Amino acid sequence: MPSIDLNADLGEGFGPWRMGDDDAMLDIVTSANVACGFHAGDQEIMARTFALAKAKGVAVGAHVGFPDLYGFGRRPLPFSAAEIERIVAYQLGAAQALARYSGHRVSYVKCHGALANIAESDRDVACAVARAICAVDPTLALLAIALSEQVGAAQSAGLRAVHEIYADRAYTDAGRLASRREQGAVIEDATAATARALAMLAEGALVTASGQRLPTQIDSICVHGDTQRAVQMARRLRDALQGAGFALAAFAAAR
Amino acid sequence: MPSIDLNADLGEGFGPWRMGDDDAMLDIVTSANVACGFHAGDQEIMARTFALAKAKGVAVGAHVGFPDLYGFGRRPLPFSAAEIERIVAYQLGAAQALARYSGHRVSYVKCHGALANIAESDRDVACAVARAICAVDPTLALLAIALSEQVGAAQSAGLRAVHEIYADRAYTDAGRLASRREQGAVIEDATAATARALAMLAEGALVTASGQRLPTQIDSICVHGDTQRAVQMARRLRDALQGAGFALAAFAAAR
Amino acid sequence: MPSIDLNADLGEGFGPWRMGDDDAMLDIVTSANVACGFHAGDQEIMARTFALAKAKGVAVGAHVGFPDLYGFGRRPLPFSAAEIERIVAYQLGAAQALARYSGHRVSYVKCHGALANIAESDRDVACAVARAICAVDPTLALLAIALSEQVGAAQSAGLRAVHEIYADRAYTDAGRLASRREQGAVIEDATAATARALAMLAEGALVTASGQRLPTQIDSICVHGDTQRAVQMARRLRDALQGAGFALAAFAAAR
Amino acid sequence: MPSIDLNADLGEGFGPWRMGDDDAMLDIVTSANVACGFHAGDQEIMARTFALAKAKGVAVGAHVGFPDLYGFGRRPLPFSAAEIERIVAYQLGAAQALARYSGHRVSYVKCHGALANIAESDRDVACAVARAICAVDPTLALLAIALSEQVGAAQSAGLRAVHEIYADRAYTDAGRLASRREQGAVIEDATAATARALAMLAEGALVTASGQRLPTQIDSICVHGDTQRAVQMARRLRDALQGAGFALAAFAAAR
Repeated sequence: MPSIDLNADLGEGFGPWRMGDDDAMLDIVTSANVACGFHAGDQEIMARTFALAKAKGVAVGAHVGFPDLYGFGRRPLPFSAAEIERIVAYQLGAAQALARYSGHRVSYVKCHGALANIAESDRDVACAVARAICAVDPTLALLAIALSEQVGAAQSAGLRAVHEIYADRAYTDAGRLASRREQGAVIEDATAATARALAMLAEGALVTASGQRLPTQIDSICVHGDTQRAVQMARRLRDALQGAGFALAAFAAAR
Repeated sequence: MPSIDLNADLGEGFGPWRMGDDDAMLDIVTSANVACGFHAGDQEIMARTFALAKAKGVAVGAHVGFPDLYGFGRRPLPFSAAEIERIVAYQLGAAQALARYSGHRVSYVKCHGALANIAESDRDVACAVARAICAVDPTLALLAIALSEQVGAAQSAGLRAVHEIYADRAYTDAGRLASRREQGAVIEDATAATARALAMLAEGALVTASGQRLPTQIDSICVHGDTQRAVQMARRLRDALQGAGFALAAFAAAR
Repeated sequence: MPSIDLNADLGEGFGPWRMGDDDAMLDIVTSANVACGFHAGDQEIMARTFALAKAKGVAVGAHVGFPDLYGFGRRPLPFSAAEIERIVAYQLGAAQALARYSGHRVSYVKCHGALANIAESDRDVACAVARAICAVDPTLALLAIALSEQVGAAQSAGLRAVHEIYADRAYTDAGRLASRREQGAVIEDATAATARALAMLAEGALVTASGQRLPTQIDSICVHGDTQRAVQMARRLRDALQGAGFALAAFAAAR
Repeated sequence: MPSIDLNADLGEGFGPWRMGDDDAMLDIVTSANVACGFHAGDQEIMARTFALAKAKGVAVGAHVGFPDLYGFGRRPLPFSAAEIERIVAYQLGAAQALARYSGHRVSYVKCHGALANIAESDRDVACAVARAICAVDPTLALLAIALSEQVGAAQSAGLRAVHEIYADRAYTDAGRLASRREQGAVIEDATAATARALAMLAEGALVTASGQRLPTQIDSICVHGDTQRAVQMARRLRDALQGAGFALAAFAAAR
């Protein structure tokens, strides 16, 4: 029985504010990317999210981003690759400590927002992220966008690369995520998104907007939980994957 | 030959701003308390300070404080003991990761500013700090104000307590640091401060403002480096200690 | 036909986060207390809120609070009365400029959260707030909790005091808002809250939890919009006030 | 007797940190560009700087920058021209209110760091800054880099443009400030910088690195005060200007 991981971004509130329905998502996903206080999240939210993930048997990763609460880490900020190493190391350490405090443990790192976009195609930045992880804890996996520069960077650094696809995002023929600002970049229909994900798994390939197939290993599917609709789409995708014979399981230790 | 540790607060800049002469202090002290980004410090300053301390054979600790750049961690902020656990865990993890990234390793934790003041006499807060350290890494030491609630809290939690005295601060008869707002609380004369420190070491006791002796173990002396005058006082104290036959050595592994 | 003002806290998001349904509330209230970036709000949200209030004929005030995004301005922070003057002046000026930029104009100031709680009973802080407003623009009104120290402080400073009551909060016999942490402090039943507000208006008095009547001028009723339920309560109160023969009108110029 | 203004950036500390010697500079310059809390400065520092400038008869301007304490406003952040309008309006209002609170009044606006660099050559951004100032207070002047896009933008908006030159910075033949990263961009020799300033005033032209003359009106010279050396250079320039027969006078009302 083949197995697949579902991952989502959680713990994206700050102080009095919340984003998405973390409780619902922790019943759906097998891996939770937890914000580390730079683009979202704070020590209270992190501790609560790690504890809840532990209780529900969900693996956790440090979701590292630019220091930019105002822009939610979605703005490309002018940090050098060397500075990005320190940004990643700081957040990773904070997440490891709070996970341990909450009885859980971080098993991977994922880049958020603009940092992920840059690391997708900029080899220097992808390597900087991998170097920072190696320096802090080389046993961690890197949850990387399939076919991105991150995959090669992780492997060169001796890190395990986990390949993820997006059910609800269009791909260019270069294998890159289409920019959110382009029409059709986000697939809002749950049926279409689910069909897409199943097709990519069946073919072992990214399916691009023009219909091309780009072969890749697929270990995880990224889903979203920031709206009620997104939660429903994630639940439908989970059900469809199970219906198609997949076991839902974290790629890394969840306990 | 008896040995003693000298510790100072370093890495207390933020972004474009600097505080004190870290380079000079790293030639004087044997342990550096490095700010972790909450009351001062940022990932760049932390990495640079850890690397420099490593190069000079100076041990490093996570100097944890309230999240309060504006107030430099000196304002008593209304955090509960449980919230303080998360505040400490977050900063400690960030410091451990950046120290590792810089080739060094954190060997202790020290509380800064208002958090230190509260933990000096509030048993609940002292225990919260100790619990957080234990949860993250029970092999670390806690650099605690001699005769404070922190000493007992560390020992109850199974942490090594390191007892520190202040050469340039007056003590009340209850063994507490006199408030900076009181006259005579800060001893600005280097000769007087040095004589005080030697007397306390010789007697194995705090010497209070009224002349009382309060017996205590003494492992470390805290010095300051925020002004040119403070750096000179620290250097004189170091010379006097060596002249009096003390070996200057970190209480914890510096390499 | 007697007239009454309804005010609510709006623009309480920050960056990617939102709080409450500002659009719905701007159709209900006659005065909007707009957060100024210290406890919530940012320059984008402020400009949008001022513009929308202008379009809907709603008066706007600067809702000033402690600089504390993390604590949403609800934590009593250790600022002196003199420091509070500068905190108020800064935020008021920022709000005035963005209101003008958006084609509107600030006609009053209201204190938020912990600053409001302190100014309710601490005469020094109440006077500091009034002095700051006078220094920046003495033509502004101060929207003050009825029977609080703010009323007297405003009047001493030569500012117009606008007296507000809370439909959904219990009062102590000293005329203070009961702490949110006490049972019964928040009245969640819309029928009860509406009846309370009408009774207080009819009697020209605060009705305390024990049933006492404390006579006061009443110019405005504060309502909340942070939950869907709160929006419904505000709408019901508005309807009930109109049903009881009140004209809903801002106490200050809305255009 | 011809007159000239000397301006410098002041109030560039934050919380516990200070930058430069504001007291010394306020005895040298005739106009002080006061940071408004976004790239540096806070309400306490602003109030103190405005009060001191008032006491010394120095005119004050709002020194507006990107919201970026960590990067000191020197990093080009991805804000649109429309967003820059709100950034400028917010800071300008805050500065006006605190100046009024301190008994002074803001008479001009100057852009800081990366915002100034962008506005120097990007017409859209230059116009956004001018529009924001007009919306808040069209009686203010814009202190603009001579021959920059800001000059035309101010004039189109109906604002008074004040033309400034830099004594200690090299110019390209396009009339732009050479990037700080290029060799020779900053002139560190006081004699050379002073001679340059006098030559530009005498010729009514920028002198470029290659020796070209680019005619321009010159109303003000920008000097720096962030190091002891910089303060000395500013003092020498002031003395040389007076020796050459210039009256030192603010271009705008200083009282």
